[in-house]
Amino acid sequence: MIIRLLAIVLLLSIGLPTHARHRDLRDHGIAIGVLQPGQWNAITDVPGVAVGHTTIIRGDDVRTGATAILPHGGNLFRDKVPAAVYVGNGFGKLAGSTQVEELGTLETPIVLTNTLNVPVAMDALIDHALAFPDNGEVRSVNAVVGETNDGYLNDIRGRHVGKAHVLAAIESASGGKVEQGSVGAGTGTVAFGFKGGIGTSSRKLPGKLGGHTVGVLVQTNFGGVLSIAGVPVGKVLGKHYLSDELNGSPDGSCMIIVATDAPLDSRNLKRLAKRAMLGLARTGGIASNGSGDYVIAFSSNESVRVPYESRSPLQQVAVLRNDAISPLFLATIEATEEAILNSLFHAETMIGRDGHEVPALPVDEVLRIMEGHGHRISR
Amino acid sequence: MIIRLLAIVLLLSIGLPTHARHRDLRDHGIAIGVLQPGQWNAITDVPGVAVGHTTIIRGDDVRTGATAILPHGGNLFRDKVPAAVYVGNGFGKLAGSTQVEELGTLETPIVLTNTLNVPVAMDALIDHALAFPDNGEVRSVNAVVGETNDGYLNDIRGRHVGKAHVLAAIESASGGKVEQGSVGAGTGTVAFGFKGGIGTSSRKLPGKLGGHTVGVLVQTNFGGVLSIAGVPVGKVLGKHYLSDELNGSPDGSCMIIVATDAPLDSRNLKRLAKRAMLGLARTGGIASNGSGDYVIAFSSNESVRVPYESRSPLQQVAVLRNDAISPLFLATIEATEEAILNSLFHAETMIGRDGHEVPALPVDEVLRIMEGHGHRISR
Amino acid sequence: MIIRLLAIVLLLSIGLPTHARHRDLRDHGIAIGVLQPGQWNAITDVPGVAVGHTTIIRGDDVRTGATAILPHGGNLFRDKVPAAVYVGNGFGKLAGSTQVEELGTLETPIVLTNTLNVPVAMDALIDHALAFPDNGEVRSVNAVVGETNDGYLNDIRGRHVGKAHVLAAIESASGGKVEQGSVGAGTGTVAFGFKGGIGTSSRKLPGKLGGHTVGVLVQTNFGGVLSIAGVPVGKVLGKHYLSDELNGSPDGSCMIIVATDAPLDSRNLKRLAKRAMLGLARTGGIASNGSGDYVIAFSSNESVRVPYESRSPLQQVAVLRNDAISPLFLATIEATEEAILNSLFHAETMIGRDGHEVPALPVDEVLRIMEGHGHRISR
Amino acid sequence: MIIRLLAIVLLLSIGLPTHARHRDLRDHGIAIGVLQPGQWNAITDVPGVAVGHTTIIRGDDVRTGATAILPHGGNLFRDKVPAAVYVGNGFGKLAGSTQVEELGTLETPIVLTNTLNVPVAMDALIDHALAFPDNGEVRSVNAVVGETNDGYLNDIRGRHVGKAHVLAAIESASGGKVEQGSVGAGTGTVAFGFKGGIGTSSRKLPGKLGGHTVGVLVQTNFGGVLSIAGVPVGKVLGKHYLSDELNGSPDGSCMIIVATDAPLDSRNLKRLAKRAMLGLARTGGIASNGSGDYVIAFSSNESVRVPYESRSPLQQVAVLRNDAISPLFLATIEATEEAILNSLFHAETMIGRDGHEVPALPVDEVLRIMEGHGHRISR
Repeated sequence: MIIRLLAIVLLLSIGLPTHARHRDLRDHGIAIGVLQPGQWNAITDVPGVAVGHTTIIRGDDVRTGATAILPHGGNLFRDKVPAAVYVGNGFGKLAGSTQVEELGTLETPIVLTNTLNVPVAMDALIDHALAFPDNGEVRSVNAVVGETNDGYLNDIRGRHVGKAHVLAAIESASGGKVEQGSVGAGTGTVAFGFKGGIGTSSRKLPGKLGGHTVGVLVQTNFGGVLSIAGVPVGKVLGKHYLSDELNGSPDGSCMIIVATDAPLDSRNLKRLAKRAMLGLARTGGIASNGSGDYVIAFSSNESVRVPYESRSPLQQVAVLRNDAISPLFLATIEATEEAILNSLFHAETMIGRDGHEVPALPVDEVLRIMEGHGHRISR
Repeated sequence: MIIRLLAIVLLLSIGLPTHARHRDLRDHGIAIGVLQPGQWNAITDVPGVAVGHTTIIRGDDVRTGATAILPHGGNLFRDKVPAAVYVGNGFGKLAGSTQVEELGTLETPIVLTNTLNVPVAMDALIDHALAFPDNGEVRSVNAVVGETNDGYLNDIRGRHVGKAHVLAAIESASGGKVEQGSVGAGTGTVAFGFKGGIGTSSRKLPGKLGGHTVGVLVQTNFGGVLSIAGVPVGKVLGKHYLSDELNGSPDGSCMIIVATDAPLDSRNLKRLAKRAMLGLARTGGIASNGSGDYVIAFSSNESVRVPYESRSPLQQVAVLRNDAISPLFLATIEATEEAILNSLFHAETMIGRDGHEVPALPVDEVLRIMEGHGHRISR
Repeated sequence: MIIRLLAIVLLLSIGLPTHARHRDLRDHGIAIGVLQPGQWNAITDVPGVAVGHTTIIRGDDVRTGATAILPHGGNLFRDKVPAAVYVGNGFGKLAGSTQVEELGTLETPIVLTNTLNVPVAMDALIDHALAFPDNGEVRSVNAVVGETNDGYLNDIRGRHVGKAHVLAAIESASGGKVEQGSVGAGTGTVAFGFKGGIGTSSRKLPGKLGGHTVGVLVQTNFGGVLSIAGVPVGKVLGKHYLSDELNGSPDGSCMIIVATDAPLDSRNLKRLAKRAMLGLARTGGIASNGSGDYVIAFSSNESVRVPYESRSPLQQVAVLRNDAISPLFLATIEATEEAILNSLFHAETMIGRDGHEVPALPVDEVLRIMEGHGHRISR
Repeated sequence: MIIRLLAIVLLLSIGLPTHARHRDLRDHGIAIGVLQPGQWNAITDVPGVAVGHTTIIRGDDVRTGATAILPHGGNLFRDKVPAAVYVGNGFGKLAGSTQVEELGTLETPIVLTNTLNVPVAMDALIDHALAFPDNGEVRSVNAVVGETNDGYLNDIRGRHVGKAHVLAAIESASGGKVEQGSVGAGTGTVAFGFKGGIGTSSRKLPGKLGGHTVGVLVQTNFGGVLSIAGVPVGKVLGKHYLSDELNGSPDGSCMIIVATDAPLDSRNLKRLAKRAMLGLARTGGIASNGSGDYVIAFSSNESVRVPYESRSPLQQVAVLRNDAISPLFLATIEATEEAILNSLFHAETMIGRDGHEVPALPVDEVLRIMEGHGHRISR
């Protein structure tokens, strides 16, 4: 209760979150791929999944935050979800990966934040787990925390994210529309030389292919040669990795969360996770040496959840067969590509540490370039 | 010598190889990425690397072959090259991967062929290794063989590749221009519903980035939603995975060989290999469940070779630092994307087993689509 | 049919198999661990598992063979078993590992043979799979073949194992008592400087722990500092790795097959496989640089089999929970340790290539050493 | 400075560390293996390596601490060491593993502590790294923290380790003799049903094998069937996993740190790390489901260090060849086995949380058992 109050106070004190006045890529008439998104075109289209942000913008140099993704609304420790981690490029500090790999399950929400605040976010997740009345005897918690480095805009050495910020992100998590752009863990991130941030998208398979949904949420902070729906925008603008313009540093990292309601075990979730990197590739990402690119995938399907305790040594599950999984691969690729682009379309220009300014994607100019490449744009 | 003669006889007897009259994607004025190719726009731009094909087209239903890639022209067993394998999707029969992973070296040429002829290709590589006069005491050979499944066009159950075919591919390997399309191991393959095959491309970094070359050779036999230089050609044509047209099966496999003259150890070669899948993603590949997508990367740089025997327990090497590797990642991605597309631009319509016909990519139609998407085409 | 006849002829022509007059370690009163073996103290205690050997002893220098392990008696391609591979040390040529890893299933019998005959064994397994009447449309087979290098006693460069030998091993496979020592793939192998070979052992858990059985079969061809039931026999004899005696080379390899009737998915089978290396460690093995140590684990439990085709995209399975698996870990460790020791207790002195002689373990001397270390020996 | 003072105060306030009056296994005349230890029979025999402990014993229920291992005495961030992580069983919360795997380097000291204090230890390591004057621009730190669960004796939910405790362990680290038993991160741990803790051992290879040293430090908190120098002590005592006695729980975890001055790259360090689990196996460990068993290996050899910045994109190194590494494997196995046993021989009976009492290994009784199994004991 004290934590809740503190969270509310924090939310009020940290300044207004960035307005979500920007539009999804799709609202401009640009569709990625061949599959259709779900209702919200968000990770929250996967039933049960909730997202919460704490955005921390303070003074001249604090531009950071935390984002929480909850696979379901219950006690995750007692009702674990199958999960997997795929390391696209391991220059990063992802916490919790080896236990997810070994046991195939996730037992806390996933929190994203900045590189140097991973420990505090883990501590907050441990608090969160221990606080459940049913978890009174719990003495081991595998906190899963991802990060990207927002140190260009944010005074990252100051480690300004506190436990309460993280708990506030968890507490405030909800389904439905997801705020995107410079919010939460994406507050201070940079992608392709433009302001990056949080983006999300989803795909819902037709009924004949199972009708399952895949939702993706990304924290974008990486580079390469920006490509939007295949159009080489970075190249046209002359702003890309290895161009003369310096804003093309490819480093930084990308965190990708993949949720699905398809009943998958951890082996096939890892395969799903691996495909998310193919979506990143389609935006022009190169998984540069300095980019920590990680994918965490989980299934929220109730039938495959793993209870902490069980009277039987056996678990009955009905999992998707290998040969039924390819449509989910395509869904993951498309949703990841679109989520990354959405993060750019939503983020606004940000000035931060030492006066560093990162411009928003010049949407109007980009749309003109798109039109020059055969896209019809809705305005 | 007998083997050489046999090889020549075989080359004569198996029918004329497909004409290489087709042009690279690049010859149509379409450039992939931001880096420049080497002289041949081929894996053979990497000094010392040679490629040889044996194409087997016989009767109505034999449409297969073998392709050999030689990291250098010497005795590979005694002068091993650093190497790594990355498994994009492991539904495949790649031979030799665990030893490459453990020891970080490659000790035979790489041979590509069809799925059911992997054993004979291994046997041929063992023959090849044992036959070197200096290898008289060799009792262990790690043959590296990749494959894709050409069973739609080829009577794959007949296992028509023989040792002599494989040895002929090795013997005939040369530098310079590489034959592409429906040749060698790509004779009977299918990609994105069109005739696939062998493709190659390269990138040479500017001197200020080290001046190293990355060359890629692919055997394409997979699917997804074909994208050419970002243009969603498969979608425009209505021929893609999950479209109503049946020719969009995504299964089949893609073998990708990445060569470089940059002095890399096996750890960084594995990172390079991993990036090749990002290049595949840019063509619309999805690494479907039934696709065995593997990347084998090696360095031909003489300074990092690993001699079989050494008077010292130490090996002196000068390897590229982690933070100098990102340009090579971009080069790998671009060369892989372009190599895959080249395989399609070179392959011709093929009729094979049970009258199955796989059409060549309709190049003229594709180029018109490209023009409609802002590309200026050279004709 | 022709193949069957050929197999019989071969069996007759290759000389009498080694007599199984030797006894298991356990028959001398030496028990390994705290769990009890099954009826046969063999991998065949796992219901449905069958083992067959072809032993090839010919002239002065052919000392090799093949051993086949069948997870069940049906058509494995259509009725796959969950499986996993763990690479203890990857200096080896194991075929088929990446597909087992990706898909989590085994679709052929496992064949063990010598290093340079892996290709022919794969070819034989492909023959075997294609020959099933129900497999008329099969165009892809993932042959799983393991090997160790018997080149000290055997003219390995001659590659004397033929397809028919391999098929004979498969055809002759049966349950019940398993021949051990210098038979099949263990005909020419060396372990700890003594004659190694095939060994097997099993553990059956008490009913309150699930009652499942774990069976292990090994092909021993490695070294270190031999330890028998904890007694440092190699050290006492002064014959071990790094001792002055040259017969202590640690290289060579060990193949370990772990079978269980516990209903495990591939993730937990991989964990089981990993534990087998702990059993190897207890015999004094060190997984030396030149030793290819691999473990293949599978479950023969009918309820977890994966049919090739299915009307439903879902598979219903009841798999063992993570927290019920530790007793199986202990069973795997104990059975592996005992199987390795059994291979030594059964193998006889062998003279082979170039007059090389490898002595049998001096059982009487060993038993005296054991007595000096507190063991009561049954004679 | 303030941190240093605080650390000293803490060291004074937390009570006297456990007396190191107990003896190494070796002091009782029991030698493990065939190689000789270094001067201290400790990880500190590897030149440059230092170890520090903070032991926290407070009131009835706080029994925990932290142990720091420093690969060298300088600024690790600017002068990284090659390193690797091997996951024996991933039910644990090891921080920092993916970056070590990707980049092959370690850039902070290694800290061991209890499961729920991993975050605070990471935070302390970040403090430590940021505080170096030369690291003023550092914005990314990969803190490596291992843990085992001391929740049986310790009020682990209270998370009693603070930043200052961790920094004190780092600050107080020194070479030479290493305190063992119930100290530092081993204060509250349990092994084989007895009081576990910190143990260490080393091996120095003869000059003809390179003369390199391998040192191992362990934090023991796991179970199985205790075996001491091969003698099945757990079985004789009737106290082991699956015995009727309840004190045989195999869960808990084991952290193993392997240091060497051999010039190894990360690939071969990973192979070294893997062998440590073979040493654990020889003590009767089974890597049970609930045991988080991790090995971190690094080379302190100056010639292979990786500077943070470099004028050249190349790094010159002289690394040990694959075929020279097996003696280091044996050294690692022996030192790990002995380090684990040393932890038991040094630890004293401990009473902690809720009156839980964990008895020390009954050394006199154990030595009598050893005598009954052919060991001559020095008293």
